[in-house]
Amino acid sequence: MKKTETGAVKIIPLGGLELIGMNITAIEYGDSIIVVDCGLAFPEEDMPGVDLVIPDVTYLKNNIDRVKGFIITHGHEDHIGALPYILKEIKVPVYATRLTMGLIEHKLEEHKLLDSVRRKTVSFGQIITLADFHVEFIKTNHSIQDAAALAITCPAGTLVHTGDFKVDYTPVYGDAIDLQRLAEIGRKGVLALLCDSTNAERPGFTMSERTLQKTFDGLFAENAGSRILVATFASNLDRVQQVINSACKSGRKVVVEGRSMVNYVAIASELGYLNIPDNTLIDIDQMKNYPPEQMAVVTTGSQGEAMAALSRMASDTHRKIKIDKNDVIIFSSNPIPGNEKAVSRVINELSEKGAKVIFQDVHVSGHARQEEIKLIYSLIRPQYAVPVHGERRHLSAQAEIVRQLGYDDRHIFLLSSGDVLSLTEEEGRVTDRVPIGAVMVDGLGVGDVGSAVIRDRQHLAEEGILIVVVTLERASYEVLAGPELISRGFVYVKESEDLLEEARTVAQEALYESLSRKHIDWSSIKTMLREDLSSFVWNKTGRRPMILPIIMEA
Amino acid sequence: MKKTETGAVKIIPLGGLELIGMNITAIEYGDSIIVVDCGLAFPEEDMPGVDLVIPDVTYLKNNIDRVKGFIITHGHEDHIGALPYILKEIKVPVYATRLTMGLIEHKLEEHKLLDSVRRKTVSFGQIITLADFHVEFIKTNHSIQDAAALAITCPAGTLVHTGDFKVDYTPVYGDAIDLQRLAEIGRKGVLALLCDSTNAERPGFTMSERTLQKTFDGLFAENAGSRILVATFASNLDRVQQVINSACKSGRKVVVEGRSMVNYVAIASELGYLNIPDNTLIDIDQMKNYPPEQMAVVTTGSQGEAMAALSRMASDTHRKIKIDKNDVIIFSSNPIPGNEKAVSRVINELSEKGAKVIFQDVHVSGHARQEEIKLIYSLIRPQYAVPVHGERRHLSAQAEIVRQLGYDDRHIFLLSSGDVLSLTEEEGRVTDRVPIGAVMVDGLGVGDVGSAVIRDRQHLAEEGILIVVVTLERASYEVLAGPELISRGFVYVKESEDLLEEARTVAQEALYESLSRKHIDWSSIKTMLREDLSSFVWNKTGRRPMILPIIMEA
Repeated sequence: MKKTETGAVKIIPLGGLELIGMNITAIEYGDSIIVVDCGLAFPEEDMPGVDLVIPDVTYLKNNIDRVKGFIITHGHEDHIGALPYILKEIKVPVYATRLTMGLIEHKLEEHKLLDSVRRKTVSFGQIITLADFHVEFIKTNHSIQDAAALAITCPAGTLVHTGDFKVDYTPVYGDAIDLQRLAEIGRKGVLALLCDSTNAERPGFTMSERTLQKTFDGLFAENAGSRILVATFASNLDRVQQVINSACKSGRKVVVEGRSMVNYVAIASELGYLNIPDNTLIDIDQMKNYPPEQMAVVTTGSQGEAMAALSRMASDTHRKIKIDKNDVIIFSSNPIPGNEKAVSRVINELSEKGAKVIFQDVHVSGHARQEEIKLIYSLIRPQYAVPVHGERRHLSAQAEIVRQLGYDDRHIFLLSSGDVLSLTEEEGRVTDRVPIGAVMVDGLGVGDVGSAVIRDRQHLAEEGILIVVVTLERASYEVLAGPELISRGFVYVKESEDLLEEARTVAQEALYESLSRKHIDWSSIKTMLREDLSSFVWNKTGRRPMILPIIMEA
Repeated sequence: MKKTETGAVKIIPLGGLELIGMNITAIEYGDSIIVVDCGLAFPEEDMPGVDLVIPDVTYLKNNIDRVKGFIITHGHEDHIGALPYILKEIKVPVYATRLTMGLIEHKLEEHKLLDSVRRKTVSFGQIITLADFHVEFIKTNHSIQDAAALAITCPAGTLVHTGDFKVDYTPVYGDAIDLQRLAEIGRKGVLALLCDSTNAERPGFTMSERTLQKTFDGLFAENAGSRILVATFASNLDRVQQVINSACKSGRKVVVEGRSMVNYVAIASELGYLNIPDNTLIDIDQMKNYPPEQMAVVTTGSQGEAMAALSRMASDTHRKIKIDKNDVIIFSSNPIPGNEKAVSRVINELSEKGAKVIFQDVHVSGHARQEEIKLIYSLIRPQYAVPVHGERRHLSAQAEIVRQLGYDDRHIFLLSSGDVLSLTEEEGRVTDRVPIGAVMVDGLGVGDVGSAVIRDRQHLAEEGILIVVVTLERASYEVLAGPELISRGFVYVKESEDLLEEARTVAQEALYESLSRKHIDWSSIKTMLREDLSSFVWNKTGRRPMILPIIMEA
């Protein structure tokens, strides 16, 4: 390996949270920064009311002149979803493969950014040069087409970033992962491998997407007398393709239902990633012209999302599709952790209607398991292992695999967000920390909901609020009105009249006592009201509602 | 089968909610009602601040003179947890096996009910008579000892209720399920089988609890140099026994940690359900006297419960136990649906500390799978199948199994809570509905938090609250103070000063406009304030906080 320079290459994960997957990583050499992926995350349970979460890219903003571009590995939300927000502030070009770019452009259009963002569609094998970096896109397989691994070369050496990947020797669309090219790059010497950890806890090898064709054919044959609905991820176009294949073989028409499913199918069809025979797709309003056993529906809602098409069908709020006992519903998906109960709710509702629900063994993952991870390490043979993509437990599981392959702990790095890992051939170590964080998006507001607001929301959710209002005469401190008590989310007011009346007396006493003092000030009146009411309520109910004293001056 | 009477026996599930498992079923014949189990449920995600949920037993209260007793199948919370609440209103005797009764008594003592509730401890094989009913307790196996099936005979015929069960030919403590007796009862003729559905979706046979002894012995041997912590369900005493066995064999002392684990171990030891060699258990404060490799800890927290011992260790808030990279933590449990993310959070935190976490294949279920369900049906051969225990999807899965056994749909009943199923040899059908529901317990309050309060809490959690206060002179409607705006959980106040100032102007205009009208009334002022502020805020932020107008009179 030729070496012209002794500076280190730096790897900086910028996704702000541990448990949820915002994928964004800065790669830095000298004066150049490139950013791999720019994903969003969906809020955790402890972020009530938040619509989505994007990374805090203060570090990139502070180094904006050095940022050369975003390199996107594939088109999933946790890899592209934050782009429209971040590109507003960091206007650099975006590089991606064709389908990925199609999906990005759809987003940019929605955010009215299509004209102002420079984009370059990259082919597999193509190398793009960004200042000190050369980046090659290498074909991989995943649960969305056109996924790429990246070989990122700079004077400090070559990094290989797998993106999210699996090894599929027989993919439904396009080529298998380019193992030859990965081996060739490995042969030349690779400084570090950043490898997907999502399935690192699972032994064995992830099955090929294509194995599901037989499954679908079988299910369609077994249920020839019924309408068949298949719920899956809208972005899993190979899955949609296979459902369409089985439908065609069994003489069924297909309805595509759910906003994002319709979008993905439209974009993929236009770009040629789906092969749908003429007269297969019909409009949902035409369904009534066909008997149920000649219909298949591909729908969103496989994760039990409350507003998704299948959930609306299950709860009888879908305007066009009614579920009955002759329907067969196939969940071609596993619940993402956290969605189990929501999925179960939908299955229960469908079962209640007498429909047949099938959810076992109709899904394969898009992520590499342990044997695939070992394969990639064996082809690349990097000097350093930097597990990426996944929660801490998954990174640790990959570390364990890498140890089995003979690596020692000085060559394995489990990074936390914000860590700056500096790598040279001589040494790898975490040399610095940069600020990171999560920016919450709620409605139209980006970043105006922060931890204090979230804490208040949690408190309000758990215990409700008890408001005490009093109006005082400005000069004399005479009580003109109140104290009045209003509660929300605390107790049934009708059944707790006595409690609230007693609380009013407590407030009154606290008020008059604080007004009888020598030095009267607003904040000590509020404190006294809050404390006295709080302990009264705690003793009576065992609860701690938010107590909010409001003093008006007249 | 002898038949002396033509009246029907009625089966009425009274658990109020579909998704969560409050087990309570009224069995009724003529003037007699017996109640099988009396469980509580833990709140769903959409019940913020609620501590636990108990069934609404209005039906039993309305028929209190006919209620003869509670028959309890086993000591899990979802079968006994509501007893202390319900027994306050329905004072009838409680019948249960010895360990189950020990656990019930512990609860009654906490609620100061021990002296006022009549109890009878029943042995397996014993038949108790309650008015028209004869109830026999039959040995089964489950993830808690002393679990019983019930054979309930009345003039209309015999019902067999399995309780929660599995078939364990080699249990850790006590005897295997009494298949002979079940067969004998079946041979005499059984009207209906009420059979556990929890694992009805799973093919095969649940493994014996005893198979885990080998697993633990192996894990203890492999990790001989480390401290070992095992998290499991506090009530799974056979599991605790097996951990203690492995610890003893490998020369370790054992610490029992977590409040409910300590309680269960104390009760079970006292009653002789645990066999702990002398000098095995040590106090947590003595741990410092032993090297880590001579210590094992059995702890609560296997479900990632925020306040449980293991969660506190993981987040460094446990006062006595610090986790480090030489610790091995074994999760001897599977996450209960809904707890996956919480468990993952704990695993991540433990991984972060470098500890080794083991969570695969260290658990067996306490519920019968498909082949066991088929076995029980084949021994009992009931006239009617009434799947119980489980969500709708699980009941449906059992129905499918029963169909495979040759039953037709007229002999299978999937009941909803409140359904009254009337059975005679001639006919089975749902003849009526009784009121059912869920009573929420929050702090000291039982039932004072209802759906309106919960809706408010959800609204507050999602969007926060915007309060607008104004003080008016009583007679003249002159504005003495305000309008003043206060928000909580809505936006960062500091960064949204302009927004709130504009909102104040909107409120002022709404106020003056409504005061300029001919007929002034409080409620129309409030409506106008609410509507104008709501649409202003929606347009500006895309959010809908709760808007609470407060008008004070001075």
